[in-house]
Amino acid sequence: MSNIYGQNIKISIFGQSHSPAIGVTIDGLPAGFAIDTNELGTFLQRRMPGQGKHTTERREADEPEFLSGLVDGVTCGAPLTAVIRNTDTRPSDYDRLWDIPRPSHADYTAYIKYGETRDVRGGGPFSGRLTAPLCVAGGIFLQLLKREGINIAAHIVQIGGIADSEQMPAAIEEARQAGDSLGGIIECAAVGVPAGIGEPMFDGIENRLASVIFGIPAVKGIEFGNGFAAAGLRGSENNDAFFMSGGSVKTRTNNHGGILGGITSGMPITFRVAFKPTPSISMEQDSVSLSKKENVKLTITGRHDPCIVPRAVPCVEAAAAVAIYDVLLA
Amino acid sequence: MSNIYGQNIKISIFGQSHSPAIGVTIDGLPAGFAIDTNELGTFLQRRMPGQGKHTTERREADEPEFLSGLVDGVTCGAPLTAVIRNTDTRPSDYDRLWDIPRPSHADYTAYIKYGETRDVRGGGPFSGRLTAPLCVAGGIFLQLLKREGINIAAHIVQIGGIADSEQMPAAIEEARQAGDSLGGIIECAAVGVPAGIGEPMFDGIENRLASVIFGIPAVKGIEFGNGFAAAGLRGSENNDAFFMSGGSVKTRTNNHGGILGGITSGMPITFRVAFKPTPSISMEQDSVSLSKKENVKLTITGRHDPCIVPRAVPCVEAAAAVAIYDVLLA
Amino acid sequence: MSNIYGQNIKISIFGQSHSPAIGVTIDGLPAGFAIDTNELGTFLQRRMPGQGKHTTERREADEPEFLSGLVDGVTCGAPLTAVIRNTDTRPSDYDRLWDIPRPSHADYTAYIKYGETRDVRGGGPFSGRLTAPLCVAGGIFLQLLKREGINIAAHIVQIGGIADSEQMPAAIEEARQAGDSLGGIIECAAVGVPAGIGEPMFDGIENRLASVIFGIPAVKGIEFGNGFAAAGLRGSENNDAFFMSGGSVKTRTNNHGGILGGITSGMPITFRVAFKPTPSISMEQDSVSLSKKENVKLTITGRHDPCIVPRAVPCVEAAAAVAIYDVLLA
Amino acid sequence: MSNIYGQNIKISIFGQSHSPAIGVTIDGLPAGFAIDTNELGTFLQRRMPGQGKHTTERREADEPEFLSGLVDGVTCGAPLTAVIRNTDTRPSDYDRLWDIPRPSHADYTAYIKYGETRDVRGGGPFSGRLTAPLCVAGGIFLQLLKREGINIAAHIVQIGGIADSEQMPAAIEEARQAGDSLGGIIECAAVGVPAGIGEPMFDGIENRLASVIFGIPAVKGIEFGNGFAAAGLRGSENNDAFFMSGGSVKTRTNNHGGILGGITSGMPITFRVAFKPTPSISMEQDSVSLSKKENVKLTITGRHDPCIVPRAVPCVEAAAAVAIYDVLLA
Repeated sequence: MSNIYGQNIKISIFGQSHSPAIGVTIDGLPAGFAIDTNELGTFLQRRMPGQGKHTTERREADEPEFLSGLVDGVTCGAPLTAVIRNTDTRPSDYDRLWDIPRPSHADYTAYIKYGETRDVRGGGPFSGRLTAPLCVAGGIFLQLLKREGINIAAHIVQIGGIADSEQMPAAIEEARQAGDSLGGIIECAAVGVPAGIGEPMFDGIENRLASVIFGIPAVKGIEFGNGFAAAGLRGSENNDAFFMSGGSVKTRTNNHGGILGGITSGMPITFRVAFKPTPSISMEQDSVSLSKKENVKLTITGRHDPCIVPRAVPCVEAAAAVAIYDVLLA
Repeated sequence: MSNIYGQNIKISIFGQSHSPAIGVTIDGLPAGFAIDTNELGTFLQRRMPGQGKHTTERREADEPEFLSGLVDGVTCGAPLTAVIRNTDTRPSDYDRLWDIPRPSHADYTAYIKYGETRDVRGGGPFSGRLTAPLCVAGGIFLQLLKREGINIAAHIVQIGGIADSEQMPAAIEEARQAGDSLGGIIECAAVGVPAGIGEPMFDGIENRLASVIFGIPAVKGIEFGNGFAAAGLRGSENNDAFFMSGGSVKTRTNNHGGILGGITSGMPITFRVAFKPTPSISMEQDSVSLSKKENVKLTITGRHDPCIVPRAVPCVEAAAAVAIYDVLLA
Repeated sequence: MSNIYGQNIKISIFGQSHSPAIGVTIDGLPAGFAIDTNELGTFLQRRMPGQGKHTTERREADEPEFLSGLVDGVTCGAPLTAVIRNTDTRPSDYDRLWDIPRPSHADYTAYIKYGETRDVRGGGPFSGRLTAPLCVAGGIFLQLLKREGINIAAHIVQIGGIADSEQMPAAIEEARQAGDSLGGIIECAAVGVPAGIGEPMFDGIENRLASVIFGIPAVKGIEFGNGFAAAGLRGSENNDAFFMSGGSVKTRTNNHGGILGGITSGMPITFRVAFKPTPSISMEQDSVSLSKKENVKLTITGRHDPCIVPRAVPCVEAAAAVAIYDVLLA
Repeated sequence: MSNIYGQNIKISIFGQSHSPAIGVTIDGLPAGFAIDTNELGTFLQRRMPGQGKHTTERREADEPEFLSGLVDGVTCGAPLTAVIRNTDTRPSDYDRLWDIPRPSHADYTAYIKYGETRDVRGGGPFSGRLTAPLCVAGGIFLQLLKREGINIAAHIVQIGGIADSEQMPAAIEEARQAGDSLGGIIECAAVGVPAGIGEPMFDGIENRLASVIFGIPAVKGIEFGNGFAAAGLRGSENNDAFFMSGGSVKTRTNNHGGILGGITSGMPITFRVAFKPTPSISMEQDSVSLSKKENVKLTITGRHDPCIVPRAVPCVEAAAAVAIYDVLLA
């Protein structure tokens, strides 16, 4: 069940880092929608590694094949399935990972949950690679939402504690050279969502968005509107005054992030997502041998992304699109 | 659907602030469990207003009546329904609220969603009063979890920016006298949850906990382990080293909050919840007349809780108990 | 989970035959609907025992109290909860039933599933009494559907093999005097459901209707349109020819029961439901002692309904209304 | 949502008759299970057309490719996706079908639901071809159930009203030559399901089984145990006496079909499924032109299966395996 999300639409994500393919099935798309595959491709490109350098050749590799749900590129009402082949699935040397869990990865918890037969290759089903089918689904929902006048956009507000976007690349490069990694915070806004969408209590916009967003690996927190900062404010500071604006009700400020009682107010939905630093670092770390039940030292080799935050921006947009489209249909 | 939560158990909460009763139905309780009603009463007392002063008379009022699911105080496998009568449901003067939404309350969004026939009395279904049945359910699950060696406890880490618990009461009193209100942050830990519980992606522990926690009114953020602070750390600082401890695997630190890849590591589950300041304040505020479509001034009269954070502590524990018990059964 | 039904609305039924109360919570009702409580009362009366004789005094007893979801008799968008008190819950002598399961009742399976603490009093949660809250929910949905031009009506087509409605009462009376019981078949039609409602595969109208209908105790079969008879026909006999009728497409016959590929055709939805004879009979039967693990003879005493089929007619209508309203919202 | 089934496991079926591929994702398989692909292949072969004649070449065509969920043929806990390529997807002439719905097919209801952009090629998502992925899922669950000592087997009890299995082939051949078609009834039994599985009311074994079985195209009825025949029996005839057999409780007869109150009794689960005759027949039929809104004559050309009942036998087993495995995990 863990890989299925949605109430009015359902997305079902499958695959592991080194399985033959990864993909997604979307159940509940309206019939008659012509997917703009160029726009989708451009969107998927944003989560690709090495942007700006090797973009083109990698993009080919991640181009989704649509197995069902379309007739001549137009949705027909049947579930849409898109798959992306894992081209590089040669049996690498994962013997060490099989026995020694990487700190702050899911290696150990996967071992406890799935046992000896878990898929350890490249993180298996916990791999960040699974965000590719999430972005395929999200990319399609972004197109559908745009048609309804709803636009979703995310951006980085902080990487490794640095809020200045010009200094971020240098900080990432410095972490890379140190064999270390950085986390960060992404902010997202959805503009154009009409007032009155959502439900009280357990199916509020916050609940539904959080349910998808925590599906992105490395996310450790989410806050809406003023979020944690609101805890330090007074009601007179945090309350958003209503006023009439051209016949419709608006608020002068948007400390509530567009959501009151779980339901949209018509103001932009705003939220921030905290990403922990990539747990894969080159430095020697303390771990254990699961077979020998003893402490060991672990050095993770190979190339690692010192900061996944830039590539996570479209993932946050995709997750938000899935959640908001789902709630819109309720 | 909005008031139903759970996958393996289901809690279904009903009622409005001024309906004849509020209550909860719990589907999926094991048969043969003797509910300790004294312990439950003590738990429910913690979310009652005016603790320490008028405790006794109020507690009577909120004592749940069990309509089903029990035989001689022991669960029989059938859904358990508990109701709490709303004793004070006299028709107060809500005419003004009916037309003028209170800033940062759900009055306006309820108007858009439900229209003229919404229940405006005391916040209707958006009232904090609905946390009483949540606490009835959570109180029962806390007892069940304790039997499994799992203990959940929450505490206040900050009120209105003040972290010193001795200064908090004075700050609240000061806000009350100023006709203002304060928010705060509650931290919660679940100790004893075995490793290997939870799922990757959309049914991780974080996703499931967030889905319930955002059901508590006034919650605007949630973070696990280091949470938002992790975004400012390096991998070498945030990673939790594994080591052997008496034959079992533990981590030296718990920056991951007991969850890796959505699955429990066996370390305590830790999370923090941000509450916005109570939107009901005595100061005059800007709002609108929904009928006349014009700007108006609103002054909310009557007694208001200047800070709901102390009463929200058991609610957080209750919500956590519901989510964790549900996931344990998967 | 077993007592919750629905995808777009949810009904959650609770109670046992001898618990303080039984009831239902309906989540997802539209706001602004004025329930006609007289009409609802008349509907509930149809499933009451002893119709025509002691109607009045019993009806009082089964009148639902609305605990939530209404303001001045009009739905407000919040979950509606209705409860019916079990007035006759004196501790009868159920010792024998506790140890000796009644043949073809759920006594034995309840014992295996819930163990010693199950509720054996009057069948506990398996009692036909639980169809009262189902009828409360169904009665409300019937009113909502009628507003949409959809009418649902059921009737008895057979009791104990007798299809002539004038001979049925005598057959029931004869069975009563023999200490025996009779089953029967109820046919139901829903007229006015627009074409194009439903889904292929697992959420077709048949699947959804069957899911609710089998929730009525004693149901052992369901068939749509020609049903089992279709198995003996040729395609040329069973196919329903299309033709134009006043600008809209209709079929000359309705062997398909208004459903093709799980989706409504606009023709009346028709289905039949098979009820087994009431398992409570006065004759001595073979059973076992669960404690002594030995064969025993069992004679069930007290008044039993020799045929529940007449009282089940509104239950079938109620179940159909719940399922069809739920699917209509999809 | 329509193509997703399950509470504790989820199967998600996708594809159309002429899409690039059809397939299924199974979420919730236990880790560590080695799928016997030979056994699965043999099972899938049973639903292939032209058994005994062109078996080999067709079987190749329908061999599933596993995209995820396996490591070296063993489940790893991640969702398993299997796809089957549609090799024959050349653009046939569906122009006529596009405008003229075939009687008793889903052509017309699909037109109303999905509009102009529906997939009409070969029945699109309503095609019996979608039972292939159902059988992939069911075949795997049959293997898992067998490991638990549970065996499921179905057989034909009637084709076109003929119960003698030796006369059935001739009846089918006769119908083929007449350009007509036949329906039939399949009986299924699940042996070895322990007592105490299932739930009362909406999640009983009957409800859950019916939900999947009606997902098979052409099914119009289902009955459990004595089913519709029970409606004509007396309680004294239909009741199943309990007796002790080697320390465990059994019933002398199995009129209840192994289910009492929605819960298994430990006796074999038995049910029968009614299939309507294949709607595709060669005879001229009355239909309408959707574009011209006028009556027309339709003659369906090409080869048609005059009776799908023989090929539906493994589909019923597969559907039963999915439902029973799902309920077993509850």
